[in-house]
Amino acid sequence: MRTSPSLLSLTIDSAVLNLSNIADLSPLPDHIVIDLFLRTLRAGKLTEKVLKLFIDTGKDEVFSLIQALNIQVTLTPVLPTTIKDDEVDIVIGALRSDLTTFMNEWRPMFSRFHLIIVKDPDLKEELKIPEGFNLDVYGKPDMDQVVGSSTSILFSGYSCRYFGYLVSRKKYIISVDDDCLPAQDPKGFLVDAVAQHISNLTNPATPFFFNTLYDPYAEGADFVRGYPFSLRGGVKCALSCGLWLNLADHDAPTQALKARQRNSRYVDAVMTVPARSLVPISGINIAFEREAVGPALVPALKLAGEGKCRWETMEDIWSGLCVKVVCDHLGLGVKTGLPYIWRTDRGDPIASLKKEWEGVKLMEEVIPFFQSVRLPREATTVEECIVEVANSVKERLGSMDPVFARAAKAMLDWVKLWQSVGSSSSRSSAV
Amino acid sequence: MRTSPSLLSLTIDSAVLNLSNIADLSPLPDHIVIDLFLRTLRAGKLTEKVLKLFIDTGKDEVFSLIQALNIQVTLTPVLPTTIKDDEVDIVIGALRSDLTTFMNEWRPMFSRFHLIIVKDPDLKEELKIPEGFNLDVYGKPDMDQVVGSSTSILFSGYSCRYFGYLVSRKKYIISVDDDCLPAQDPKGFLVDAVAQHISNLTNPATPFFFNTLYDPYAEGADFVRGYPFSLRGGVKCALSCGLWLNLADHDAPTQALKARQRNSRYVDAVMTVPARSLVPISGINIAFEREAVGPALVPALKLAGEGKCRWETMEDIWSGLCVKVVCDHLGLGVKTGLPYIWRTDRGDPIASLKKEWEGVKLMEEVIPFFQSVRLPREATTVEECIVEVANSVKERLGSMDPVFARAAKAMLDWVKLWQSVGSSSSRSSAV
Repeated sequence: MRTSPSLLSLTIDSAVLNLSNIADLSPLPDHIVIDLFLRTLRAGKLTEKVLKLFIDTGKDEVFSLIQALNIQVTLTPVLPTTIKDDEVDIVIGALRSDLTTFMNEWRPMFSRFHLIIVKDPDLKEELKIPEGFNLDVYGKPDMDQVVGSSTSILFSGYSCRYFGYLVSRKKYIISVDDDCLPAQDPKGFLVDAVAQHISNLTNPATPFFFNTLYDPYAEGADFVRGYPFSLRGGVKCALSCGLWLNLADHDAPTQALKARQRNSRYVDAVMTVPARSLVPISGINIAFEREAVGPALVPALKLAGEGKCRWETMEDIWSGLCVKVVCDHLGLGVKTGLPYIWRTDRGDPIASLKKEWEGVKLMEEVIPFFQSVRLPREATTVEECIVEVANSVKERLGSMDPVFARAAKAMLDWVKLWQSVGSSSSRSSAV
Repeated sequence: MRTSPSLLSLTIDSAVLNLSNIADLSPLPDHIVIDLFLRTLRAGKLTEKVLKLFIDTGKDEVFSLIQALNIQVTLTPVLPTTIKDDEVDIVIGALRSDLTTFMNEWRPMFSRFHLIIVKDPDLKEELKIPEGFNLDVYGKPDMDQVVGSSTSILFSGYSCRYFGYLVSRKKYIISVDDDCLPAQDPKGFLVDAVAQHISNLTNPATPFFFNTLYDPYAEGADFVRGYPFSLRGGVKCALSCGLWLNLADHDAPTQALKARQRNSRYVDAVMTVPARSLVPISGINIAFEREAVGPALVPALKLAGEGKCRWETMEDIWSGLCVKVVCDHLGLGVKTGLPYIWRTDRGDPIASLKKEWEGVKLMEEVIPFFQSVRLPREATTVEECIVEVANSVKERLGSMDPVFARAAKAMLDWVKLWQSVGSSSSRSSAV
């Protein structure tokens, strides 16, 4: 049944044997490149150098094959040159003791930066952290020493990372939950979430007018016709909220209802959330300019039955609403979209649901409050803004539910703490 | 040099010859499916049925190959069942006489709907329109008969399409510029822009709170944690603004400055533009519920040196600002994002720039006006809202530039026209 091989087929076979002499494959028709790629693979000749030869063709179908065959491409992060490595702290809240996989997977992106790892004070086991990172680890003893006991701030669970925000002295902070791994883009390349966050923070935001063409500062992008020129300079971006592939960030009821739903939609866009539009900022994958809005990231809203699953918490949503209201008042920007991270499963959504999650009910009070809160013109610093918001919370929500009165108290305590600890240069380390 | 064929290779060759007996290829490993696909192709055995067999595997790399090899896939538009075909008018403004390519390329999406083609009154040549469509053509004689001469409304250039909006009696209108062709998505499939627009219009919009996970009603999507449940029902979507691959919608200066820039970024997302956030709605690729906001799409702002290039016009931007302000007031939604269309080149941006485009200067006055305009509670219909906006334009912008006084007059005339012509059932046809 087999016909004799075609001249093309013989040529490709010969090319497989002579790949080391070929400098550029891009002039070849796409289907020949694919065929050559597959035969190279089958012949066991796909070295890193040869792989690069195929990648350099820039052909989409090569990327698809690399992705389909799950070939690991070595990552070379390209960072904007305007930021020095020592201007960034990566803050990780450790809710589980074994960080080996997490750290090793993130090594290509994390290893050039300083890391602050904050251990959940409820976690009893010793942390397991692989070698080769520049990091400081903080735990309960550090919290007691730095913060003391005379405060309403609770650093347990996901809130432990806020201790890292407090002791950092860097201009920028990037924070990723410890159940997240680097994601792949649609071409199969690992996403450098750190580089994307830094790009989001160092390029202006455009909160005062909507650009239908998404981030106008991205490569190959611009402002759409009709966008006023006076607004094209944008404003400083204070916070960047990244998104999630695999397990999206749903609340307990949605997670329970759609337990098997996974997010596979990679939306290749960064956008500024318009001014006066509120947004639920998830703390799973964020970055912010600590020097610009640090004190607005505040661990204030702690739900009664809160456990160690994201969908049981609201601390980041509350903090995000504070940040957004403050940014709107001070003329700063908040972005959402890229970078994606890969979020793995943790916890049992049905069990969470049985806890009668207060989050649903509380949000119905929280959102109208934040939509209507107005900051006085005299509030010109983040600290002053947060004090104003805290006082309004106490006044308007305080009697509704004790959780709000506690939140208001925590916000006021946080500002004091930020002013004392945050401005001092004393640091505690206990690796 | 050639080694004898492997057992796998022989098996695949045999499969090529027996494809008609195979019902499902999806259990096969990806690389075998690819190999089989390529060999089937080379053997000249890729019929429509066989192609479907490969597509049904759902494998990304099959889609990539189809795209790479530019294999035309027959399109079967899937429309939401809630809309009947006769609820939609597709309105095309003809600025050039030969619509043959345009109509033939759009045939798969357009042919089941009624079309209204409006000939630019400045166009002297007869229209060339291929057979096989259900359509009405309108020209200058119809405009004179329906509208008369005692009006400030000008239907020349891109504004001719508004005559189609006026004479339509359908619930929904979709409109695409005549220099646009169907786009391909990243998998190489033709985008059914009509189906996507209808989906945007028939699913709710969420203008009162930002969802970081984009359109929560899209398949596989939902609301993010922290999104208040009381707002998850959304509101009616009145307008859908689609985007552009290849030539993006830039203004004259940007187009001149970046004459070679092409948009290749396919952002797989639909989003609601938040309430109180203004947006430049481009008229190139839009759809709207005529019964909900028809009178707000108004040909009012005509630049002095306006020609027949999109980047020389502002009529759609002005109309879009009116729509957005009215939608915000009436609690309706405006979406942007998908569908993409492929926009081809037309015109010389440098020549346009020499005309000293007024658009840049005017927008600096227009935007603060629309940002601050407030409609009275008593304005409860679109017509009433537009009259209010027109009066404010006259009052606050009228003395600044005659173009604004003319715009205000045109808006008032348009509302009267809409009430007389739009509510009557007389129709004119001159195919």
